[in-house]
Amino acid sequence: MAVRESVLKVVTEAFKRHGAETIDTPVFELKDVLMGKYGEEGGKLVYDLQDQGGELLSLRYDLTVPFARYLAMNKISNIKSGQYDLMIPEAECLKIVDEVLSKLEIGEFYVKLNHRLLLEGMFAACGAGPDQFKTVCSSIDKLDKQPWSEVEEELIKEKGLTKENTIKLGQYVTLREYNPSLDNYELLDKLMGFEELAKKFPVLLRYCCLFGIKSIRFDPSLARGLDYYTGAIYEAVVPNALKGLNLEENGDQEGLPVGVGSVAAGGRYDELVGNFMAPAGTKGKEKRHDVPCVGVSFGIERLFAIIEAKNQVEQLQVRTTETEIFIASAQKNLLEERMKLCGSLWDEGFKVEMSYKANPKLLNQLQYCEDRLIPLALIVGERELQDGVVKLRYVQTRIEQDVRLPELVSTLRNALRSL
Amino acid sequence: MAVRESVLKVVTEAFKRHGAETIDTPVFELKDVLMGKYGEEGGKLVYDLQDQGGELLSLRYDLTVPFARYLAMNKISNIKSGQYDLMIPEAECLKIVDEVLSKLEIGEFYVKLNHRLLLEGMFAACGAGPDQFKTVCSSIDKLDKQPWSEVEEELIKEKGLTKENTIKLGQYVTLREYNPSLDNYELLDKLMGFEELAKKFPVLLRYCCLFGIKSIRFDPSLARGLDYYTGAIYEAVVPNALKGLNLEENGDQEGLPVGVGSVAAGGRYDELVGNFMAPAGTKGKEKRHDVPCVGVSFGIERLFAIIEAKNQVEQLQVRTTETEIFIASAQKNLLEERMKLCGSLWDEGFKVEMSYKANPKLLNQLQYCEDRLIPLALIVGERELQDGVVKLRYVQTRIEQDVRLPELVSTLRNALRSL
Repeated sequence: MAVRESVLKVVTEAFKRHGAETIDTPVFELKDVLMGKYGEEGGKLVYDLQDQGGELLSLRYDLTVPFARYLAMNKISNIKSGQYDLMIPEAECLKIVDEVLSKLEIGEFYVKLNHRLLLEGMFAACGAGPDQFKTVCSSIDKLDKQPWSEVEEELIKEKGLTKENTIKLGQYVTLREYNPSLDNYELLDKLMGFEELAKKFPVLLRYCCLFGIKSIRFDPSLARGLDYYTGAIYEAVVPNALKGLNLEENGDQEGLPVGVGSVAAGGRYDELVGNFMAPAGTKGKEKRHDVPCVGVSFGIERLFAIIEAKNQVEQLQVRTTETEIFIASAQKNLLEERMKLCGSLWDEGFKVEMSYKANPKLLNQLQYCEDRLIPLALIVGERELQDGVVKLRYVQTRIEQDVRLPELVSTLRNALRSL
Repeated sequence: MAVRESVLKVVTEAFKRHGAETIDTPVFELKDVLMGKYGEEGGKLVYDLQDQGGELLSLRYDLTVPFARYLAMNKISNIKSGQYDLMIPEAECLKIVDEVLSKLEIGEFYVKLNHRLLLEGMFAACGAGPDQFKTVCSSIDKLDKQPWSEVEEELIKEKGLTKENTIKLGQYVTLREYNPSLDNYELLDKLMGFEELAKKFPVLLRYCCLFGIKSIRFDPSLARGLDYYTGAIYEAVVPNALKGLNLEENGDQEGLPVGVGSVAAGGRYDELVGNFMAPAGTKGKEKRHDVPCVGVSFGIERLFAIIEAKNQVEQLQVRTTETEIFIASAQKNLLEERMKLCGSLWDEGFKVEMSYKANPKLLNQLQYCEDRLIPLALIVGERELQDGVVKLRYVQTRIEQDVRLPELVSTLRNALRSL
């Protein structure tokens, strides 16, 4: 939990740095709300539950669909800003990903970037109709783990594409190896040749450049298998996340890079909220109140796994408490003095511990501080109490000094600042 | 969520100030783990769920039973400290309650305190056997909402106590009106006359005094209806929590105090972990590995309701974002300059927003800052850029000053500190 909290803190602080509001949605949604939103593969992975009242509920499968349902139910048409120009909010989402993954110090990472228009255009050019879109997407999504030859075979044998169209599709999809420099995006336009996209994609790359983002990589095969994206789609990966770790999954390939899938993902989904708002039976855009949305989510569990593995490799001792000061006693019968001192330091806001034994041994108390990496110890003794002082010990260096009680709070504040 | 997070922060910081480790347990437990742990009333309130694999699961009903199950499963015999002397950890739990409720500024509160031994002794003296203990407890627990006469009637008619024994019980239970001063606890001993308790209770009151806790009130009727407590039992209440609020529940009694039940509760439960550790079928203490535990939980939702109600009464405007600086533009065509400045300030750790419009109007941008209580605005203009400066505006006072770009970061840090 200490590691988990440190990861969550980096993510939360990044969002707050960008003016985020915090909302939370229930762990469950009505099953109907979730169904049909995650494409072919996702739908199979949703967990159903039955509540006491007999309604069909499912555990939320992501945060996007519950968020859109929440906006629709509460008729919220904007959270951060209702008005925006092309690709500015998308660039900010990518900046947040870049900031979080840099701050977490998890090594090399990059953000794969694609656009729904490119995917659709590719499919149109290759003879895959809208009906086939979902199923072809879920095949292409497998390119991270399988070679193109296997995906090609699946597309022909299982998804019913012609050999000729699959080859055409492959020409686009395997452009993923091409990694455009951000200042040279006109190359990208030329390669794509999709007019509407040519207006949008270079703008986004330019904005990323202005925000100082260096981790973007164009990836035309990025589909994410989710039906709700309407514009930019992105996904961050950490290719060498678990490198050097002797994990069981690694078998005899000790030390080889092991991927953990995506650690952050998002995109634009302009129609999802409107879908929830439209009364049952109505169709067509004119009946809907569109609420454009763009966002990004982080895979906290995966980031946590990466950082825990890194700590393991570096043999880093993680502190699981934040205690700053331990109040020890040098002799017997000083429990009441320790308690009084402890109570007053808690009231001053210090993080303080003391032994729960009435007469603990001094050595055991100092050992506790060293084991738990508590930086400061205050040693209460008969003689010191008579002189109106208490002994301050710096646990790591074992340096000790007497501190007069009226100066104790300010001395402790300074000592903690100087650590 | 902004209010909720502020409450959670106060609670979390208090626990960390006392050397807490953070753990989390799953939202679900096996139904078997929870059953029989919450007494008669509690058992009815547990929500059952059915998972994909067909195991009987229930939503956790409190945090204590899952925590004890976690300790037992992981064979953890101590979290904070394995060794302790009488009542010292209990006093620290009560100190945490006192700190949290003081810091939250929710008005008058007090902590009801009782002991399992007193409850058991009382029941023995009144002819209520161990079999009746649970059911009599759940009746006594109702004294917060019902007068003694109604509880008395329930005990006789529904729980089968004799009239005579019920009267004896009432003499103890209604001692709750007696509020002992912490320095005068010998009175308490005299009143109780329970030998074993007389050794323990005064010690706890003395320790509370040393820790500077002033909110304790003795309450012999406090039973909490939970089976697992073996020693001290405590519960914090805020009697006038929603005073002055025109709530619907209040009906025509507008302005009268409304209780919200307990906002924190806990106690000692020395046998719960051992119960989980004992192999099925074994009975008796000699087979068990006892893990003594004491703790306290806060009712976050109730605290949140109290604070939200208070904000409503005081018409307090709660900021839901933490943005410190807004980057505005005075003329058109300054989007790229704004983005570059924004990116560099994010990298410096500032909380910054800018408009998502390419050419927003200056007045709209400044209005946004005032509406959202953003304290500082930076105004980018053609002339200023040529001079290598940017205009810093203090939103509340509308005072403006030019800042040279190399000095921008330090000027902003100082400006934020001085707010």
